[in-house]
Amino acid sequence: MTTNRGGRPRSDRAHRAILQATRDLLAESGYEALTIEAIAARAGVGRPTLYRWWSSKAAVVAEAVTEGLMDSEVLAPPDTGDFAADLATWWEGRLRLLRDPRAAAILRGWTAASAESNEEADRLYALITGPLRQALARRFAVAVELGQIRSDVSLDALSETLFGGLLYRVLTRVTHQPAGQVIDLLLRGIIR
Amino acid sequence: MTTNRGGRPRSDRAHRAILQATRDLLAESGYEALTIEAIAARAGVGRPTLYRWWSSKAAVVAEAVTEGLMDSEVLAPPDTGDFAADLATWWEGRLRLLRDPRAAAILRGWTAASAESNEEADRLYALITGPLRQALARRFAVAVELGQIRSDVSLDALSETLFGGLLYRVLTRVTHQPAGQVIDLLLRGIIR
Repeated sequence: MTTNRGGRPRSDRAHRAILQATRDLLAESGYEALTIEAIAARAGVGRPTLYRWWSSKAAVVAEAVTEGLMDSEVLAPPDTGDFAADLATWWEGRLRLLRDPRAAAILRGWTAASAESNEEADRLYALITGPLRQALARRFAVAVELGQIRSDVSLDALSETLFGGLLYRVLTRVTHQPAGQVIDLLLRGIIR
Repeated sequence: MTTNRGGRPRSDRAHRAILQATRDLLAESGYEALTIEAIAARAGVGRPTLYRWWSSKAAVVAEAVTEGLMDSEVLAPPDTGDFAADLATWWEGRLRLLRDPRAAAILRGWTAASAESNEEADRLYALITGPLRQALARRFAVAVELGQIRSDVSLDALSETLFGGLLYRVLTRVTHQPAGQVIDLLLRGIIR
């Protein structure tokens, strides 16, 4: 995830300062307005320092976003033995993140970068969506094993609806919809 | 949806040429690389002509995308009396659109514009997501009325998972996943 950067303290500080500046600027003014120049200025480094580690705006955003979102969040759903409750807890944690305007702005930056570049979409899937999906898959497999959920439900479909639901909220700026409705729908289905 | 433009034939032709050029360029090189200059050049008009109708790149993209996506598609789910089958038919139609690389590129342009600007997100919701949601809501209400589906299922949750699923496929470039899995999940739920 991080490029090899030698590990000298001053270099490490610059690297961290650049990622923090990227997150701050993304949250303040969005992805489109973000420039390499502004990131370098805010981080107190020269552009060549930044280009030593990242080849483009999208690349530095990808790493900044990943670090900001993944460090403080528990990725995996809990396992209390109750799959329905654990899924709801996990989903509520994802939605809580979206209600933070700063995190929402960062996620919009991620979404814009993915929409604009196949390469960035692949990279961000590898950095964020993939690990989230793997964590969900492990919890899902336990519930299937215990016979708590249908064995023929598609994990792909569950991922698509859950992660898609997050994207929908990111793009529509919806933060007020009750978290439980989507989980209720996915658990119990539409048909009476 | 279209601005008042007098209706003179030459003006109409220029307006249509600009929207077509925008869709062509979006499909060829994506949203980020798109410029007002390139659109005007491709359409054979001057930049002032373009700025007569649209104030920004995002604005012309919004209208171009809407026209391209909504004209040829039937918005509403069919009503054969079988809600499950009709929902599957409707969903399959949306996914078919995504399998067209040109339409997928346009949708990525829409996604990028929405991620970058609250104003464009509002506008695009009004132009695309809102009408799709209303069409879905009407079919949904008929099924509730006939007692075919649970009356306490949230239309918000259904919209979030379906439209979110489309966004997920747009951003991950997934086109191969079977269409039926998501509908099966939403109809029957996870719990056995």
